[in-house]
Amino acid sequence: MADVKSYSSRPVLTVNLTALAENYKYLAAKASPAKVGASVKADAYGLGAAVVGRALYGAGCRIFFVAHAGEGKILRTAIGSKASIYVLSGNTPQDTAIFFGSKLKPVINSLTQARDWVKACQPVKHAPRTALHFDTGINRLGIPKEEAEIFATDKTLLTDLDVDLVMSHLACSGEPNHPLNAIQLARFKKIAGRMPMVPLSLANTGAIYLGPEYHFKLVRTGIGLYGGKITDNPQDEQVKPVVELHAPVLQIKTVKAGETLGYNASFTAKNDMKIAIVSAGYADGLPVNLSGSDKRIVTSARLGKSRVDVIGRVSMDYTILDITDYDGFVELGAKAVFFGEDLENQAAHAHMINYEVMTHLGARCRKIYVNE
Amino acid sequence: MADVKSYSSRPVLTVNLTALAENYKYLAAKASPAKVGASVKADAYGLGAAVVGRALYGAGCRIFFVAHAGEGKILRTAIGSKASIYVLSGNTPQDTAIFFGSKLKPVINSLTQARDWVKACQPVKHAPRTALHFDTGINRLGIPKEEAEIFATDKTLLTDLDVDLVMSHLACSGEPNHPLNAIQLARFKKIAGRMPMVPLSLANTGAIYLGPEYHFKLVRTGIGLYGGKITDNPQDEQVKPVVELHAPVLQIKTVKAGETLGYNASFTAKNDMKIAIVSAGYADGLPVNLSGSDKRIVTSARLGKSRVDVIGRVSMDYTILDITDYDGFVELGAKAVFFGEDLENQAAHAHMINYEVMTHLGARCRKIYVNE
Repeated sequence: MADVKSYSSRPVLTVNLTALAENYKYLAAKASPAKVGASVKADAYGLGAAVVGRALYGAGCRIFFVAHAGEGKILRTAIGSKASIYVLSGNTPQDTAIFFGSKLKPVINSLTQARDWVKACQPVKHAPRTALHFDTGINRLGIPKEEAEIFATDKTLLTDLDVDLVMSHLACSGEPNHPLNAIQLARFKKIAGRMPMVPLSLANTGAIYLGPEYHFKLVRTGIGLYGGKITDNPQDEQVKPVVELHAPVLQIKTVKAGETLGYNASFTAKNDMKIAIVSAGYADGLPVNLSGSDKRIVTSARLGKSRVDVIGRVSMDYTILDITDYDGFVELGAKAVFFGEDLENQAAHAHMINYEVMTHLGARCRKIYVNE
Repeated sequence: MADVKSYSSRPVLTVNLTALAENYKYLAAKASPAKVGASVKADAYGLGAAVVGRALYGAGCRIFFVAHAGEGKILRTAIGSKASIYVLSGNTPQDTAIFFGSKLKPVINSLTQARDWVKACQPVKHAPRTALHFDTGINRLGIPKEEAEIFATDKTLLTDLDVDLVMSHLACSGEPNHPLNAIQLARFKKIAGRMPMVPLSLANTGAIYLGPEYHFKLVRTGIGLYGGKITDNPQDEQVKPVVELHAPVLQIKTVKAGETLGYNASFTAKNDMKIAIVSAGYADGLPVNLSGSDKRIVTSARLGKSRVDVIGRVSMDYTILDITDYDGFVELGAKAVFFGEDLENQAAHAHMINYEVMTHLGARCRKIYVNE
């Protein structure tokens, strides 16, 4: 328990950059000979896009994906001019200057975006290249079937767009047996066959495990980089946890049998108890649904080498732990640890998905990058 | 639907500062003659502590509460030197310099914090004053019963602490009939009677409606300022919504009967449909639990004057809306609106509480302050 003497009340999010780089290399080996790009949208899933981007760049990544132009601008400043940064939302009117200023490549999702982009590029000497994103069945963002025909036949449009990537996105890659995977693969091959000879990309992290026919030239990884699991595939289990939430112990007190704890008095001490109040709550991404009540204990935190139950309601800033049976002395400032290898379980217990929990962790915590 | 022509893909969080100020004044009238302080911890519940703090200051607020010293530092810079800023976590060793530098008042939660603070203040000429926080039954942070006796009898300690507020915190103020309210009130009166003659504070927003005997000299409001409801009290219903999430429409497409939508293909079109893909997802605080599936539609968004269902899985950056029966033309860049007056319902449908949803809204959205 390092740094206990000099603790702050502010919780800490540790981001293990060594594990991140190892996950990148692990996924790159699995996807080889395809290249591996990285999704660092939403501030790298909450972990900090600038530092995460630089770490992935250091691990060899040269192709990045963000959701919005503003995210791309921050990433560009962090990683320099040599990598490709694609903006998945595509070009939107208000963001054009950011695309040009930060050399961001729009992922073209529609004929409207294509024509807007071509028009915007007319006065520009060296406009960024673009990706074409075909919707092959997720029915979310992406060029729909009826517009695909125009892209396949309008050679002027294609020339003007200066396409360097043709992609699609799978809806069910985490479910290897879902019939939509093969359907999307077939549709993607069909449309890609009519496009210019540029690299193709279909797979996200989950699709790496669907087999090499899904890999094409570029795999776009996201959750796997950050240690999140999405499939029941044993290979997926080999990515290493990257993120832990460390909540400092602010106070230790005793509670008498029969007394209640926390908001709504939802937990009653059955015996005399010893409790630790730690400084992290739902504003730090610890879901209220992890609260312990008289009905049930939902989860626990790691404290030293032990696990201690979360009792009472998780509040905005603080959470209460049962240290009655804790074997040893708990110092003020000692850190209770959430997530890490427990991310999937704790997310499931909160009725959330691991991605969702992860994106909320960075909001208030001080981020400490390990092995930077 | 203003600003459609110049839309960005980045979603917008609108924070209505007029409604915020009106809520402050409404709660101040309810609590009168008690003063009303404002909790602006967790970046003002995600809405931006600097701007929100200034707006509340403009509405007359002079007493603020944050959770951590770092939050206090940001607030101090925003609102200037004339208001009191209390740090609810109390002083922690690593943060002492911030307390002194930004003139933050620690909320003393234990004898350890009291003694640490007194020691830290010895070399300092004009140390900030302090609050004493007694735990009267929430069994979370706060001076426990066994330490209260020391505070009541050690006059030197009290003099050294230079206390200017004595407070406690209710566990069940949202439940007017909960017996713990009266118990905490009685305990608070008892301990406060043994303390120096300084202002007393027990009530949070919910406790305003418990009656004037709970108000004392200072009421500490939080969720009510931000338009969140916490009680079944009809008076509580009169606070005005402050926050809306505006998600721009990025694409409109048709989906044929039998096709599926979004991740995990969890929604199937029963008829030919028209859908809008809007740019906001769980990274923007829209919970995955609001997803619509074949089993059920959970929620809807406001689009123009209509409401349109959320269908398919809410993903990190995008959400799909059913605009099949939408009466009118949907422009690209038009904004689908979440939360606002629907905050409580949408939070409940996501199996979350309104506070929790609110704190996650500010992470990625561009914040637009209305009537600033």
